[in-house]
Amino acid sequence: MQRMALDDRRSRADRARQIADLLRRQILQGSFPQGQLPLEATLAREFDTSRNAVREALDLLREEGLVERCPGVGTTVAAEKYPHGLHRLLGLAETLHEHGRVTNQVRTMTMMEPPAPVSRRLGLAPGEQVVYLERVRSLNGLPLSLDLTYLVRDAGEPLFDADLANNDIFALLEGITGQPLGVAELTLEAVNADTHTAAALGAPRGAALLMVERLTHLADGRPVDLEFIRFRGDRLTMRGHLRRTPEEERAWP
Amino acid sequence: MQRMALDDRRSRADRARQIADLLRRQILQGSFPQGQLPLEATLAREFDTSRNAVREALDLLREEGLVERCPGVGTTVAAEKYPHGLHRLLGLAETLHEHGRVTNQVRTMTMMEPPAPVSRRLGLAPGEQVVYLERVRSLNGLPLSLDLTYLVRDAGEPLFDADLANNDIFALLEGITGQPLGVAELTLEAVNADTHTAAALGAPRGAALLMVERLTHLADGRPVDLEFIRFRGDRLTMRGHLRRTPEEERAWP
Repeated sequence: MQRMALDDRRSRADRARQIADLLRRQILQGSFPQGQLPLEATLAREFDTSRNAVREALDLLREEGLVERCPGVGTTVAAEKYPHGLHRLLGLAETLHEHGRVTNQVRTMTMMEPPAPVSRRLGLAPGEQVVYLERVRSLNGLPLSLDLTYLVRDAGEPLFDADLANNDIFALLEGITGQPLGVAELTLEAVNADTHTAAALGAPRGAALLMVERLTHLADGRPVDLEFIRFRGDRLTMRGHLRRTPEEERAWP
Repeated sequence: MQRMALDDRRSRADRARQIADLLRRQILQGSFPQGQLPLEATLAREFDTSRNAVREALDLLREEGLVERCPGVGTTVAAEKYPHGLHRLLGLAETLHEHGRVTNQVRTMTMMEPPAPVSRRLGLAPGEQVVYLERVRSLNGLPLSLDLTYLVRDAGEPLFDADLANNDIFALLEGITGQPLGVAELTLEAVNADTHTAAALGAPRGAALLMVERLTHLADGRPVDLEFIRFRGDRLTMRGHLRRTPEEERAWP
């Protein structure tokens, strides 16, 4: 009997996860008018499952901060989650321009002699200085990310006089260097927010963050911008597409 | 005085985060022989900072599950973190073949009439059945991900007789359909693990997961495979590169 009960619980949890994944997608796409999800009974019919499984699915989405649930009101979308394009190299304001206004709070900006790992990645001689910059980036006033940025001196120094509050670094760098950016190497991870990062982003401690490390080169190949970006997991998704056969191989078969 | 103390704490926390980000990269690259990190004093010298800031940085990495710290032994790398290629569409065994053996535990495999959102994304008529598959995927016996997979019937049904424990779905699908895969649409998110997912992955509840939703098409454009993948954040990174000017635009200037 105990075995049965365990299997039942597991099976309902599995079912709840399936439903949550499908609802998550619909929420991200803005499929629910006025952000109002259907009644539990309706969802149970739609997904051909029990109300308990639906309730458990909605609980999962609530834990993710995607929905709110109130007696009498039902389930409503709690917060918009924004798509960051993963198809090309874009600054935050560029990629989110349809969704609102990106502003940046500069927490730190200074010249520094960087630690050896930074010098190596930026191809600098030991002792060469960099501009170090720390920003909290917000969309329509809501904190999205905490960015730690190391810039080579000639590209970074003019930024002391730039309007960093209202511009992407990418756009400013292209203006300063007089050439477009080229390629960026990217590493994506999921990490839990430490206490101080959580405070800076207005998120609970332990909240899942999408962490991006990105080394950006100018079109001429020189690395100029090394960034460590922590995105709030409940506010941002990355979207792109992958090909089975890469472009290069298709072009020269 | 209280203000000063607060600023000091914040400043040390900021410094710790910078150091942690740089050490994380070195750990991922396997830069430390035998997985042994330098002494705190050495790191403090290297990063030109206090031992307290270094200690706080190592604590952040310990919280992420990246390092272990033992009195007398020092700081050692706790677990390898594996790179999943983001430059092309690859199955897990394909992308990790240099790192070891991927095995799959099938938790569920069944024919089902899918919920409407699945039918729509796979381009199916209402009532058309799919194969639903749930797997825990491991590398060298360590759980990496929990995958929920919906496959169109003609491509999925032959999988009931396939060796799913030892093969990527991608490779099997190409064998079954007699054509290569084409493009996949991808959404990446960071979410906290719910209780049941955490149990399936052997991770703590709330652990940061890299969540991938992926709709894969055959080369002829037909969508065949819709997956919801939860990767353990402490075991996997995604790596790729982005261009400022996409391939297509460079080809036709």
